[in-house]
Amino acid sequence: MTLPTFGTTVTAVDGAAAAEKPDALAIEEPLEIVLVHGPATNRRRSAVAVTMRTPGHDAELAVGYLVGEGLLVDPSDLLAVASTDANAIRVDLKPGVAGNLDRLQRRGAMNSSCGVCGKTTLDAIEAEGVAALSAGPTLAIDAIHRLPERLRAAQASFAATGGLHAVGLFDAFGDLLVLREDVGRHNAADKVIGAEFLAGRLPLSDRVLFSTSRASFELVQKAAVAGVPVFAAVGAPTSLAVQLAQRFGLTLLGFVRDGRFNVYSGGERLGFANPPAAPLR
Amino acid sequence: MTLPTFGTTVTAVDGAAAAEKPDALAIEEPLEIVLVHGPATNRRRSAVAVTMRTPGHDAELAVGYLVGEGLLVDPSDLLAVASTDANAIRVDLKPGVAGNLDRLQRRGAMNSSCGVCGKTTLDAIEAEGVAALSAGPTLAIDAIHRLPERLRAAQASFAATGGLHAVGLFDAFGDLLVLREDVGRHNAADKVIGAEFLAGRLPLSDRVLFSTSRASFELVQKAAVAGVPVFAAVGAPTSLAVQLAQRFGLTLLGFVRDGRFNVYSGGERLGFANPPAAPLR
Repeated sequence: MTLPTFGTTVTAVDGAAAAEKPDALAIEEPLEIVLVHGPATNRRRSAVAVTMRTPGHDAELAVGYLVGEGLLVDPSDLLAVASTDANAIRVDLKPGVAGNLDRLQRRGAMNSSCGVCGKTTLDAIEAEGVAALSAGPTLAIDAIHRLPERLRAAQASFAATGGLHAVGLFDAFGDLLVLREDVGRHNAADKVIGAEFLAGRLPLSDRVLFSTSRASFELVQKAAVAGVPVFAAVGAPTSLAVQLAQRFGLTLLGFVRDGRFNVYSGGERLGFANPPAAPLR
Repeated sequence: MTLPTFGTTVTAVDGAAAAEKPDALAIEEPLEIVLVHGPATNRRRSAVAVTMRTPGHDAELAVGYLVGEGLLVDPSDLLAVASTDANAIRVDLKPGVAGNLDRLQRRGAMNSSCGVCGKTTLDAIEAEGVAALSAGPTLAIDAIHRLPERLRAAQASFAATGGLHAVGLFDAFGDLLVLREDVGRHNAADKVIGAEFLAGRLPLSDRVLFSTSRASFELVQKAAVAGVPVFAAVGAPTSLAVQLAQRFGLTLLGFVRDGRFNVYSGGERLGFANPPAAPLR
């Protein structure tokens, strides 16, 4: 699917010269995600997020977001997903699915608790019972080196706005399975994970998630919750992303480009000894 | 100020070769922002945000965030800003400062309103009474071309983690006034705007805000609320960022690098006619 773009005219300046030319913009619009939950006799609507996203694959985005937040655990819990207008989507859980409401409340409590810190954040994820990651896959170094060109080749059919992040799901041989683009890197990851959740393929054991962005805490968290054992990024990882990966045994690769990459965690899947764990601040 | 980094050891892979080497990570930790507000007889604490940020300049970050959200309007409304632990900060408004509570409630209502769309979003910002931007400044093309090298030169003294965004505030001659870095581009902008707010220098008329990231809707919104008439970015702008800039008469420049840039809005400050306004979807 090619994402729609927004045509405009710009003044293109090159040195001292200037000329008008057509340009394509990546589309950014808000999407409100509403979760409908509770027993049949007491249905409740919870507006869980407004995200600035590129329209397209909205259902996958909403579902992937809820999976990442721990608000949606099993495909059989899902009653329906439907857009209510161009920029709002509603996800209905089956009546009586209770665990999610608890999580929604706990999540609110977590966000408003004082004294959050990196360790608290990691402890909270562990307490939520993120499933253990699979021991595999065993990866060839060449499969990692190939990720950027494979992603780029698939993106070539997409409009070149220069403003879209992409996230690809690959198998252990470095072959691309799913690609999604978005102005927001979190959204692109949510769309990939949502697509796989809706297809009943979670946990994503033996898969590699590759992002054109940096590796932030939140992206690595999304990968861990979806059961992805390997997260690779074109850019740098952050301290908390590395700590999260080390805590959960996830393979974290950064600066994956131009035939090079760095291994920050989980090197055993590539045949490397692991670097010493980074101490928590 | 040099931001602290996090030392670690990585396995660096280059082609088929691998070697352990030291590496510096950009630090990412959550920061909870708590706003204390209301009359002296009925003080209330509102946890307004948890943002994943690079520690340093937390007070500026919290204040800049609240300014961008319209929750803090005048420096004289501020009673105190203080960290309550390493990852939480409290901003106290003077007793009786009432407008902000209204905005906090309205903001909640906005976020949970159904049917958000780009036009609704822009209308809401207009309804909040964002001050008109100054007609100036008049910019020389060369001043824009110089932005990337000026920012890079100032960043050279900072640790090279490869994982930090930077936002610089420049005068109309292209001279750097304030630079802040963060793992999050929004945070870097909030830190710059917060620093200027605390120094009593808002609105930031005749200034240029330059970001190493793309120009998203939220970044351009922060600039507009702070009264910055010119926003420039190394990367691409999104559709809604361009629409926002056109609506508020802000000069929006994208792909500012290597002696080139594109003008998406407000070209008159550079002596250009404006491209036709992008129609709202």
